[in-house]
Amino acid sequence: MDEPVLLTGASGRVGSAILGGIADEYDWRLLDQEPPTGDTPGEYVVADVTNEAALRNAMKDVRAVIHLAGDPRPEAPWNSVLENNIDGTKKVFDIAAQTGVEKVVFASSNHAVGAYETEDRTPDMYRDNHEYRLDGSELPRPSNLYGVSKAAGETLGRYYHDHYDLSVACVRIGNLTKGHPPIDYERGQAMWLSYRDCAHLFDRCIKADYDYEIVYGISDNDRKYYSLERAKDVLGYDPRDNSAEFDGEKKAQTE
Amino acid sequence: MDEPVLLTGASGRVGSAILGGIADEYDWRLLDQEPPTGDTPGEYVVADVTNEAALRNAMKDVRAVIHLAGDPRPEAPWNSVLENNIDGTKKVFDIAAQTGVEKVVFASSNHAVGAYETEDRTPDMYRDNHEYRLDGSELPRPSNLYGVSKAAGETLGRYYHDHYDLSVACVRIGNLTKGHPPIDYERGQAMWLSYRDCAHLFDRCIKADYDYEIVYGISDNDRKYYSLERAKDVLGYDPRDNSAEFDGEKKAQTE
Repeated sequence: MDEPVLLTGASGRVGSAILGGIADEYDWRLLDQEPPTGDTPGEYVVADVTNEAALRNAMKDVRAVIHLAGDPRPEAPWNSVLENNIDGTKKVFDIAAQTGVEKVVFASSNHAVGAYETEDRTPDMYRDNHEYRLDGSELPRPSNLYGVSKAAGETLGRYYHDHYDLSVACVRIGNLTKGHPPIDYERGQAMWLSYRDCAHLFDRCIKADYDYEIVYGISDNDRKYYSLERAKDVLGYDPRDNSAEFDGEKKAQTE
Repeated sequence: MDEPVLLTGASGRVGSAILGGIADEYDWRLLDQEPPTGDTPGEYVVADVTNEAALRNAMKDVRAVIHLAGDPRPEAPWNSVLENNIDGTKKVFDIAAQTGVEKVVFASSNHAVGAYETEDRTPDMYRDNHEYRLDGSELPRPSNLYGVSKAAGETLGRYYHDHYDLSVACVRIGNLTKGHPPIDYERGQAMWLSYRDCAHLFDRCIKADYDYEIVYGISDNDRKYYSLERAKDVLGYDPRDNSAEFDGEKKAQTE
């Protein structure tokens, strides 16, 4: 079997979506600060993402890392995102570069660019037939300090890609919900990411060849303001879901 | 007299260039971790940039801040830039937003985008008649972890501009040397910033009206790969120096 793939933050929501879809695709090594609640599809290490020794150990003989661990709260205070998201992500990239990992897939966030949603543009930009698109080449405009920390993680990825032999994909994850898109929440419908599209997108991030990419992680929603072009062209992302196919969405459209 | 302008890192090289040129223009408040070595053109506070109480005190009734303080070494280790440059700059923006400061001018660096200077492009991009230009709209590509910290400072500025009533200018400072451009160093000649152009540029950053800007801080060198368009158009920057007018430059061109 191929060398394992390390998943940090394995027990979080994104980790669950990924393992729910592609548990059988890889030899997994899982890391989370919380112990597992059931069977796990691979070796499971309980450790904090700021624990360098644990990270170094977990990355031994690993070919790719999906790095999700960090404080996931949009309202997280600065000290927490500084330590867990900025410093933690630096440690992951640094150890990956030192230990010969080939690829790091970094869970960035729509909050890295949330302030493009200005009063002038909203709610129009959340609706069908609106042309506004962010495509990943734009400068960060964070919604919050959590978003600042995600943008810093992307920049760290750029640095480690440019200076070490490391492919880096940053996925600006939209609104990940299980089963159906958020109800009566246009913004969430426009940036909806279904669980199966999430698993498929991260699968493509492990399988595809690339240098450094920033892509948006959303389903192929009719209404969207994030471009899927890079994800489709470079990663071969082929999403199957669309928030417009759900009743909640149709209801919201006619309001 | 108008409310004072706070200059952090006042005793560093950029601070000296600024005060050498525009000491008489403002009522200055100066802050540095090192005590002054001579007379100072304003009240001088010896304090570290990570000292919140000192920062808060120094920003009382201030209308604008020029924030230079931080670890200035391109080769500075991560822990130092994380604390002094990222966390320190966050504190400055945060306290500025809380205390009603109107403008923060942030000393960013060419190192935030140094990795655009790829092997393919250099040394051609350092030379006359080469069309390649960075203009401030490009994503960061840091040369080093110091550059990562400067890019993070720019993103923090974006966040504080978008969420508070704060004008923010980020100046990606080139190669600041006194008297003449670096000798036999094409890259340094292409991004040379003379002392008087430096003082004038920061003066424009205090006087001009803008929202959020990233500009390059270089003289009007014949050979350059940084655009001066935004600095000229938005800030009214009118540089007087050009590295091509110096012998060292002419000598290097004929080599």
